[in-house]
Amino acid sequence: MLRKHQWENILKDLCKMQYPLPIARLIESYMKLPGIGEKTATRLAFYTLDMPKEDVEDFSTSLRDVKVNLHTCSICGNITENDPCDICKDKSRDQTTIMVVEQPKDVMAFEEMGEYNGLYHVLHGVLSPMDGIGPEEVNIKSLITRLQKNDQVKEVILALNSTPEGESTAMYIGKLIKPAGIKVSRLAAGLAVGSDIEYANSITLKRAVQGRTTL
Amino acid sequence: MLRKHQWENILKDLCKMQYPLPIARLIESYMKLPGIGEKTATRLAFYTLDMPKEDVEDFSTSLRDVKVNLHTCSICGNITENDPCDICKDKSRDQTTIMVVEQPKDVMAFEEMGEYNGLYHVLHGVLSPMDGIGPEEVNIKSLITRLQKNDQVKEVILALNSTPEGESTAMYIGKLIKPAGIKVSRLAAGLAVGSDIEYANSITLKRAVQGRTTL
Repeated sequence: MLRKHQWENILKDLCKMQYPLPIARLIESYMKLPGIGEKTATRLAFYTLDMPKEDVEDFSTSLRDVKVNLHTCSICGNITENDPCDICKDKSRDQTTIMVVEQPKDVMAFEEMGEYNGLYHVLHGVLSPMDGIGPEEVNIKSLITRLQKNDQVKEVILALNSTPEGESTAMYIGKLIKPAGIKVSRLAAGLAVGSDIEYANSITLKRAVQGRTTL
Repeated sequence: MLRKHQWENILKDLCKMQYPLPIARLIESYMKLPGIGEKTATRLAFYTLDMPKEDVEDFSTSLRDVKVNLHTCSICGNITENDPCDICKDKSRDQTTIMVVEQPKDVMAFEEMGEYNGLYHVLHGVLSPMDGIGPEEVNIKSLITRLQKNDQVKEVILALNSTPEGESTAMYIGKLIKPAGIKVSRLAAGLAVGSDIEYANSITLKRAVQGRTTL
Protein backbone atom coordinates (compact mmCIF):
# COMPACT_ATOMS: atom_id res chain seq x y z
CA MET A 1 0.00 0.00 0.00
CA LEU A 2 1.24 3.48 -0.84
CA ARG A 3 1.18 6.06 1.92
CA LYS A 4 -0.78 9.28 1.64
CA HIS A 5 2.20 11.49 0.80
CA GLN A 6 3.24 9.07 -1.95
CA TRP A 7 -0.22 9.37 -3.47
CA GLU A 8 0.08 13.12 -3.29
CA ASN A 9 3.39 13.00 -5.14
CA ILE A 10 1.88 10.86 -7.88
CA LEU A 11 -1.05 13.25 -8.13
CA LYS A 12 1.36 16.17 -8.36
CA ASP A 13 3.28 14.39 -11.14
CA LEU A 14 0.07 13.78 -13.03
CA CYS A 15 -0.85 17.46 -12.72
CA LYS A 16 2.63 18.34 -14.00
CA MET A 17 1.75 16.25 -17.06
CA GLN A 18 -1.02 18.78 -17.81
CA TYR A 19 -3.85 16.35 -17.21
CA PRO A 20 -6.95 18.32 -16.26
CA LEU A 21 -7.63 17.80 -12.54
CA PRO A 22 -10.75 15.60 -12.96
CA ILE A 23 -8.71 13.17 -15.09
CA ALA A 24 -5.77 13.20 -12.68
CA ARG A 25 -8.14 12.38 -9.81
CA LEU A 26 -9.75 9.55 -11.76
CA ILE A 27 -6.32 8.13 -12.64
CA GLU A 28 -5.46 8.27 -8.95
CA SER A 29 -8.65 6.37 -8.09
CA TYR A 30 -8.05 3.67 -10.69
CA MET A 31 -4.51 3.25 -9.34
CA LYS A 32 -5.92 2.25 -5.96
CA LEU A 33 -7.32 -0.93 -7.51
CA PRO A 34 -5.13 -4.03 -7.27
CA GLY A 35 -2.90 -4.77 -10.26
CA ILE A 36 -3.52 -1.40 -11.92
CA GLY A 37 -0.49 0.83 -12.37
CA GLU A 38 -0.14 4.36 -13.68
CA LYS A 39 -0.17 3.42 -17.39
CA THR A 40 -3.27 1.22 -17.15
CA ALA A 41 -5.02 3.75 -14.90
CA THR A 42 -4.37 6.50 -17.46
CA ARG A 43 -5.67 4.30 -20.26
CA LEU A 44 -8.81 3.47 -18.23
CA ALA A 45 -9.39 7.12 -17.33
CA PHE A 46 -9.27 8.21 -20.97
CA TYR A 47 -11.46 5.27 -21.92
CA THR A 48 -13.96 6.40 -19.26
CA LEU A 49 -13.99 9.82 -20.87
CA ASP A 50 -15.25 8.27 -24.11
CA MET A 51 -17.79 5.94 -22.46
CA PRO A 52 -21.53 6.67 -22.79
CA LYS A 53 -22.62 9.03 -20.04
CA GLU A 54 -25.19 6.61 -18.59
CA ASP A 55 -22.59 3.84 -18.27
CA VAL A 56 -20.33 6.14 -16.28
CA GLU A 57 -23.29 7.24 -14.15
CA ASP A 58 -24.17 3.59 -13.48
CA PHE A 59 -20.56 2.84 -12.59
CA SER A 60 -20.43 5.78 -10.20
CA THR A 61 -23.73 4.82 -8.58
CA SER A 62 -22.85 1.14 -8.23
CA LEU A 63 -19.57 2.04 -6.53
CA ARG A 64 -21.42 4.13 -3.98
CA ASP A 65 -24.12 1.45 -3.63
CA VAL A 66 -21.81 -1.36 -2.58
CA LYS A 67 -20.64 0.81 0.28
CA VAL A 68 -24.05 2.21 1.24
CA ASN A 69 -26.40 -0.73 0.62
CA LEU A 70 -24.27 -3.70 1.58
CA HIS A 71 -23.74 -4.62 5.22
CA THR A 72 -22.40 -7.65 7.02
CA CYS A 73 -25.06 -9.93 8.47
CA SER A 74 -25.07 -9.60 12.26
CA ILE A 75 -25.46 -13.37 12.60
CA CYS A 76 -23.15 -14.99 10.03
CA GLY A 77 -20.98 -12.08 8.84
CA ASN A 78 -21.85 -12.59 5.16
CA ILE A 79 -22.42 -9.49 3.04
CA THR A 80 -26.08 -8.75 2.50
CA GLU A 81 -28.55 -6.03 1.64
CA ASN A 82 -30.81 -6.98 4.58
CA ASP A 83 -29.82 -7.88 8.12
CA PRO A 84 -30.12 -10.77 8.99
CA CYS A 85 -29.21 -12.15 5.55
CA ASP A 86 -31.53 -14.30 3.43
CA ILE A 87 -29.67 -17.49 4.37
CA CYS A 88 -29.86 -16.87 8.14
CA LYS A 89 -33.55 -15.94 7.83
CA ASP A 90 -34.43 -19.04 5.79
CA LYS A 91 -35.95 -21.48 8.31
CA SER A 92 -36.15 -24.22 5.66
CA ARG A 93 -32.36 -24.55 5.75
CA ASP A 94 -30.67 -27.11 7.96
CA GLN A 95 -30.16 -25.24 11.26
CA THR A 96 -27.90 -27.94 12.69
CA THR A 97 -24.89 -27.35 10.45
CA ILE A 98 -22.67 -24.27 10.15
CA MET A 99 -20.04 -24.05 7.45
CA VAL A 100 -17.16 -21.72 8.35
CA VAL A 101 -15.62 -19.95 5.33
CA GLU A 102 -13.02 -17.23 4.84
CA GLN A 103 -14.78 -14.85 2.46
CA PRO A 104 -18.30 -13.96 1.23
CA LYS A 105 -17.19 -15.23 -2.20
CA ASP A 106 -16.82 -18.72 -0.69
CA VAL A 107 -20.47 -18.66 0.43
CA MET A 108 -21.44 -17.81 -3.14
CA ALA A 109 -19.31 -20.68 -4.49
CA PHE A 110 -21.04 -23.19 -2.17
CA GLU A 111 -24.47 -21.74 -2.96
CA GLU A 112 -23.74 -22.08 -6.65
CA MET A 113 -22.84 -25.74 -6.05
CA GLY A 114 -26.38 -26.10 -4.64
CA GLU A 115 -25.75 -29.29 -2.60
CA TYR A 116 -25.30 -27.62 0.78
CA ASN A 117 -28.40 -26.58 2.68
CA GLY A 118 -27.02 -25.56 6.08
CA LEU A 119 -25.93 -22.20 7.47
CA TYR A 120 -22.67 -20.28 7.09
CA HIS A 121 -20.25 -18.26 9.13
CA VAL A 122 -17.89 -15.87 7.32
CA LEU A 123 -14.57 -15.11 9.05
CA HIS A 124 -13.49 -12.30 6.69
CA GLY A 125 -9.92 -13.52 6.80
CA VAL A 126 -7.70 -16.11 8.45
CA LEU A 127 -5.27 -16.00 11.34
CA SER A 128 -1.91 -14.75 10.16
CA PRO A 129 0.39 -13.73 13.03
CA MET A 130 3.03 -12.58 10.51
CA ASP A 131 0.60 -9.92 9.22
CA GLY A 132 -0.62 -9.09 12.73
CA ILE A 133 -3.98 -10.80 12.20
CA GLY A 134 -4.98 -12.55 15.42
CA PRO A 135 -8.31 -14.05 16.61
CA GLU A 136 -9.64 -10.54 17.36
CA GLU A 137 -9.22 -9.43 13.75
CA VAL A 138 -11.34 -12.21 12.24
CA ASN A 139 -14.96 -13.11 12.94
CA ILE A 140 -14.23 -16.02 15.34
CA LYS A 141 -15.63 -14.56 18.56
CA SER A 142 -19.12 -14.19 17.06
CA LEU A 143 -18.98 -17.84 15.94
CA ILE A 144 -18.34 -18.97 19.53
CA THR A 145 -21.14 -16.72 20.87
CA ARG A 146 -23.43 -18.06 18.16
CA LEU A 147 -22.68 -21.67 19.16
CA GLN A 148 -23.13 -20.89 22.86
CA LYS A 149 -26.53 -19.27 22.28
CA ASN A 150 -27.79 -21.95 19.92
CA ASP A 151 -27.70 -25.59 21.01
CA GLN A 152 -29.33 -26.83 17.77
CA VAL A 153 -25.95 -26.89 16.01
CA LYS A 154 -24.59 -30.42 15.69
CA GLU A 155 -21.75 -29.92 13.20
CA VAL A 156 -19.31 -27.21 12.20
CA ILE A 157 -17.68 -27.71 8.76
CA LEU A 158 -14.39 -25.84 8.46
CA ALA A 159 -14.29 -24.95 4.76
CA LEU A 160 -11.12 -22.86 4.85
CA ASN A 161 -8.59 -22.60 2.07
CA SER A 162 -5.87 -25.21 1.91
CA THR A 163 -3.15 -22.66 2.72
CA PRO A 164 -0.90 -22.70 5.81
CA GLU A 165 -2.99 -19.85 7.29
CA GLY A 166 -6.26 -21.61 6.45
CA GLU A 167 -5.06 -24.87 7.98
CA SER A 168 -3.84 -23.26 11.20
CA THR A 169 -7.06 -21.23 11.52
CA ALA A 170 -9.02 -24.48 11.15
CA MET A 171 -6.86 -26.10 13.87
CA TYR A 172 -7.44 -23.10 16.16
CA ILE A 173 -11.22 -23.05 15.70
CA GLY A 174 -11.37 -26.85 16.04
CA LYS A 175 -9.64 -26.68 19.43
CA LEU A 176 -12.09 -23.99 20.62
CA ILE A 177 -15.25 -25.83 19.55
CA LYS A 178 -14.51 -29.50 20.22
CA PRO A 179 -14.82 -29.27 24.04
CA ALA A 180 -18.48 -28.21 23.55
CA GLY A 181 -19.20 -31.65 22.06
CA ILE A 182 -19.96 -30.32 18.59
CA LYS A 183 -18.75 -32.37 15.63
CA VAL A 184 -16.02 -30.51 13.74
CA SER A 185 -15.21 -31.56 10.19
CA ARG A 186 -13.13 -30.21 7.34
CA LEU A 187 -13.30 -30.51 3.58
CA ALA A 188 -11.66 -33.51 1.95
CA ALA A 189 -8.20 -32.85 0.54
CA GLY A 190 -7.07 -34.68 -2.57
CA LEU A 191 -6.75 -34.42 -6.32
CA ALA A 192 -8.90 -31.80 -8.00
CA VAL A 193 -11.38 -33.43 -10.38
CA GLY A 194 -9.95 -33.34 -13.89
CA SER A 195 -6.37 -32.77 -12.72
CA ASP A 196 -3.25 -34.79 -13.58
CA ILE A 197 -1.34 -36.75 -10.96
CA GLU A 198 1.96 -35.75 -12.57
CA TYR A 199 1.30 -32.05 -11.89
CA ALA A 200 -0.05 -32.48 -8.34
CA ASN A 201 2.28 -31.36 -5.55
CA SER A 202 3.52 -33.95 -3.07
CA ILE A 203 1.43 -32.70 -0.11
CA THR A 204 -1.74 -33.02 -2.19
CA LEU A 205 -0.72 -36.54 -3.23
CA LYS A 206 0.03 -37.47 0.40
CA ARG A 207 -3.45 -36.25 1.41
CA ALA A 208 -5.05 -38.09 -1.50
CA VAL A 209 -3.41 -41.35 -0.42
CA GLN A 210 -4.26 -40.82 3.26
CA GLY A 211 -7.90 -40.09 2.44
CA ARG A 212 -8.34 -42.89 -0.13
CA THR A 213 -11.80 -44.43 -0.30
CA THR A 214 -12.73 -48.07 -1.03
CA LEU A 215 -14.51 -48.74 -4.28
CA MET B 1 -18.79 -4.40 -27.81
CA LEU B 2 -21.46 -6.54 -26.20
CA ARG B 3 -25.05 -5.74 -26.99
CA LYS B 4 -27.59 -4.82 -24.34
CA HIS B 5 -29.27 -8.23 -24.18
CA GLN B 6 -25.87 -9.90 -23.79
CA TRP B 7 -25.15 -7.67 -20.81
CA GLU B 8 -28.52 -8.59 -19.37
CA ASN B 9 -27.69 -12.28 -19.72
CA ILE B 10 -24.37 -11.79 -17.93
CA LEU B 11 -26.14 -9.85 -15.19
CA LYS B 12 -28.69 -12.63 -14.88
CA ASP B 13 -25.91 -15.21 -14.62
CA LEU B 14 -24.23 -13.18 -11.91
CA CYS B 15 -27.51 -12.99 -10.00
CA LYS B 16 -27.85 -16.75 -10.34
CA MET B 17 -24.47 -16.96 -8.63
CA GLN B 18 -26.11 -15.45 -5.55
CA TYR B 19 -24.15 -12.23 -5.66
CA PRO B 20 -26.14 -9.48 -3.97
CA LEU B 21 -27.49 -7.11 -6.62
CA PRO B 22 -25.20 -4.14 -5.78
CA ILE B 23 -22.15 -6.37 -6.30
CA ALA B 24 -23.54 -7.85 -9.53
CA ARG B 25 -24.10 -4.33 -10.84
CA LEU B 26 -20.59 -3.23 -9.90
CA ILE B 27 -19.12 -6.33 -11.58
CA GLU B 28 -21.12 -5.43 -14.68
CA SER B 29 -19.70 -1.89 -14.61
CA TYR B 30 -16.12 -3.05 -14.21
CA MET B 31 -16.63 -5.43 -17.15
CA LYS B 32 -17.35 -2.48 -19.42
CA LEU B 33 -13.73 -1.33 -19.02
CA PRO B 34 -11.29 -2.51 -21.69
CA GLY B 35 -9.29 -5.66 -20.90
CA ILE B 36 -11.37 -6.54 -17.83
CA GLY B 37 -13.26 -9.82 -17.98
CA GLU B 38 -15.70 -11.41 -15.56
CA LYS B 39 -13.06 -12.89 -13.22
CA THR B 40 -11.10 -9.66 -12.88
CA ALA B 41 -14.30 -7.63 -12.54
CA THR B 42 -15.45 -9.89 -9.71
CA ARG B 43 -12.09 -9.58 -7.98
CA LEU B 44 -12.18 -5.79 -8.33
CA ALA B 45 -15.77 -5.61 -7.05
CA PHE B 46 -14.92 -7.58 -3.90
CA TYR B 47 -11.76 -5.52 -3.47
CA THR B 48 -13.90 -2.37 -3.69
CA LEU B 49 -16.09 -3.75 -0.92
CA ASP B 50 -13.06 -3.82 1.39
CA MET B 51 -11.69 -0.41 0.36
CA PRO B 52 -11.93 2.54 2.78
CA LYS B 53 -15.27 4.27 2.37
CA GLU B 54 -13.73 7.65 1.46
CA ASP B 55 -11.64 6.07 -1.34
CA VAL B 56 -14.76 4.56 -2.89
CA GLU B 57 -16.59 7.89 -2.50
CA ASP B 58 -13.69 9.68 -4.23
CA PHE B 59 -13.71 7.10 -7.00
CA SER B 60 -17.46 7.48 -7.49
CA THR B 61 -17.22 11.28 -7.51
CA SER B 62 -14.24 11.40 -9.88
CA LEU B 63 -16.05 9.15 -12.36
CA ARG B 64 -19.02 11.50 -12.38
CA ASP B 65 -16.70 14.53 -12.52
CA VAL B 66 -14.93 13.56 -15.73
CA LYS B 67 -18.30 13.40 -17.44
CA VAL B 68 -19.78 16.52 -15.84
CA ASN B 69 -16.79 18.85 -15.56
CA LEU B 70 -14.81 18.02 -18.68
CA HIS B 71 -15.83 19.37 -22.07
CA THR B 72 -14.20 19.62 -25.44
CA CYS B 73 -12.79 23.04 -26.26
CA SER B 74 -14.96 24.67 -28.92
CA ILE B 75 -11.84 25.96 -30.70
CA CYS B 76 -9.30 23.12 -30.67
CA GLY B 77 -11.33 20.11 -29.50
CA ASN B 78 -9.00 19.34 -26.58
CA ILE B 79 -10.61 18.24 -23.31
CA THR B 80 -10.80 21.03 -20.79
CA GLU B 81 -12.60 22.23 -17.70
CA ASN B 82 -13.13 25.72 -19.19
CA ASP B 83 -14.15 26.61 -22.73
CA PRO B 84 -12.06 27.84 -24.54
CA CYS B 85 -9.21 25.82 -23.06
CA ASP B 86 -6.18 27.34 -21.33
CA ILE B 87 -3.98 26.80 -24.39
CA CYS B 88 -6.37 28.50 -26.81
CA LYS B 89 -6.86 31.40 -24.35
CA ASP B 90 -3.11 31.88 -23.82
CA LYS B 91 -2.18 34.85 -26.03
CA SER B 92 1.54 34.41 -25.22
CA ARG B 93 1.57 31.22 -27.30
CA ASP B 94 2.60 31.26 -30.94
CA GLN B 95 -0.68 31.92 -32.79
CA THR B 96 0.85 31.15 -36.21
CA THR B 97 1.30 27.38 -35.72
CA ILE B 98 -1.31 24.70 -35.20
CA MET B 99 -0.31 21.13 -34.37
CA VAL B 100 -2.91 18.55 -35.40
CA VAL B 101 -3.02 15.50 -33.10
CA GLU B 102 -5.26 12.44 -32.78
CA GLN B 103 -6.06 12.43 -29.06
CA PRO B 104 -6.05 14.76 -26.02
CA LYS B 105 -3.31 12.52 -24.59
CA ASP B 106 -1.05 13.59 -27.46
CA VAL B 107 -1.47 17.25 -26.47
CA MET B 108 -0.38 16.32 -22.97
CA ALA B 109 2.67 14.47 -24.30
CA PHE B 110 3.77 17.52 -26.32
CA GLU B 111 3.07 19.87 -23.40
CA GLU B 112 5.17 17.64 -21.17
CA MET B 113 7.99 17.89 -23.72
CA GLY B 114 7.79 21.67 -23.21
CA GLU B 115 9.50 22.70 -26.48
CA TYR B 116 6.36 23.47 -28.46
CA ASN B 117 4.66 26.82 -27.90
CA GLY B 118 2.02 26.92 -30.62
CA LEU B 119 -1.63 25.89 -30.67
CA TYR B 120 -3.26 22.49 -31.12
CA HIS B 121 -6.15 20.87 -32.91
CA VAL B 122 -7.44 17.52 -31.62
CA LEU B 123 -9.12 15.25 -34.19
CA HIS B 124 -10.44 12.67 -31.68
CA GLY B 125 -9.60 9.86 -34.07
CA VAL B 126 -8.28 9.21 -37.55
CA LEU B 127 -9.92 8.37 -40.83
CA SER B 128 -10.58 4.66 -41.03
CA PRO B 129 -12.98 3.72 -43.84
CA MET B 130 -12.87 0.07 -42.73
CA ASP B 131 -14.43 1.06 -39.38
CA GLY B 132 -16.82 3.51 -41.01
CA ILE B 133 -14.91 6.56 -39.75
CA GLY B 134 -14.94 9.22 -42.46
CA PRO B 135 -14.08 12.94 -42.41
CA GLU B 136 -17.43 13.72 -40.73
CA GLU B 137 -16.62 11.52 -37.72
CA VAL B 138 -13.38 13.27 -36.83
CA ASN B 139 -12.77 16.90 -35.99
CA ILE B 140 -11.47 17.96 -39.44
CA LYS B 141 -14.26 20.31 -40.50
CA SER B 142 -13.65 22.60 -37.51
CA LEU B 143 -9.94 22.73 -38.41
CA ILE B 144 -10.78 23.99 -41.88
CA THR B 145 -13.26 26.58 -40.51
CA ARG B 146 -10.63 27.64 -37.98
CA LEU B 147 -8.05 28.18 -40.73
CA GLN B 148 -10.55 30.08 -42.91
CA LYS B 149 -11.50 32.42 -40.07
CA ASN B 150 -7.96 33.02 -38.90
CA ASP B 151 -5.34 34.22 -41.40
CA GLN B 152 -2.57 34.42 -38.75
CA VAL B 153 -1.81 30.70 -39.13
CA LYS B 154 1.36 30.10 -41.16
CA GLU B 155 2.02 26.43 -40.47
CA VAL B 156 0.04 23.27 -39.69
CA ILE B 157 2.10 20.44 -38.19
CA LEU B 158 0.47 17.04 -38.71
CA ALA B 159 1.53 15.12 -35.60
CA LEU B 160 -0.47 11.97 -36.28
CA ASN B 161 0.58 8.47 -35.32
CA SER B 162 2.78 6.56 -37.71
CA THR B 163 0.04 4.04 -38.51
CA PRO B 164 -1.58 3.45 -41.91
CA GLU B 165 -4.67 5.36 -40.68
CA GLY B 166 -2.57 8.19 -39.26
CA GLU B 167 -0.58 8.51 -42.49
CA SER B 168 -3.62 8.55 -44.72
CA THR B 169 -5.39 11.08 -42.49
CA ALA B 170 -2.29 13.29 -42.71
CA MET B 171 -2.34 12.99 -46.53
CA TYR B 172 -6.05 13.88 -46.60
CA ILE B 173 -5.68 16.95 -44.39
CA GLY B 174 -2.55 18.03 -46.26
CA LYS B 175 -4.44 18.00 -49.56
CA LEU B 176 -7.26 20.10 -48.07
CA ILE B 177 -4.99 22.75 -46.55
CA LYS B 178 -2.17 23.17 -49.06
CA PRO B 179 -4.25 25.10 -51.66
CA ALA B 180 -4.74 27.84 -49.02
CA GLY B 181 -1.00 28.51 -49.12
CA ILE B 182 -0.39 27.36 -45.53
CA LYS B 183 2.80 25.40 -44.86
CA VAL B 184 1.98 21.81 -43.95
CA SER B 185 4.62 19.72 -42.19
CA ARG B 186 4.74 16.36 -40.49
CA LEU B 187 6.90 14.89 -37.74
CA ALA B 188 10.23 13.36 -38.71
CA ALA B 189 10.19 9.59 -39.05
CA GLY B 190 13.26 7.58 -38.10
CA LEU B 191 14.90 5.59 -35.37
CA ALA B 192 13.55 6.14 -31.86
CA VAL B 193 16.24 7.58 -29.61
CA GLY B 194 17.86 4.76 -27.66
CA SER B 195 16.65 2.06 -30.03
CA ASP B 196 18.70 -0.60 -31.86
CA ILE B 197 19.00 -0.68 -35.64
CA GLU B 198 18.79 -4.47 -35.61
CA TYR B 199 15.30 -4.39 -34.12
CA ALA B 200 13.92 -1.56 -36.28
CA ASN B 201 11.48 -2.56 -39.02
CA SER B 202 12.44 -1.98 -42.63
CA ILE B 203 9.98 0.88 -43.23
CA THR B 204 11.41 2.77 -40.26
CA LEU B 205 14.93 2.19 -41.59
CA LYS B 206 13.90 3.35 -45.05
CA ARG B 207 12.49 6.58 -43.56
CA ALA B 208 15.60 7.04 -41.44
CA VAL B 209 17.82 6.81 -44.52
CA GLN B 210 15.56 9.08 -46.60
CA GLY B 211 15.50 11.70 -43.87
CA ARG B 212 19.22 11.55 -43.02
CA THR B 213 20.78 14.82 -41.90
CA THR B 214 24.33 16.08 -42.54
CA LEU B 215 26.63 16.34 -39.54
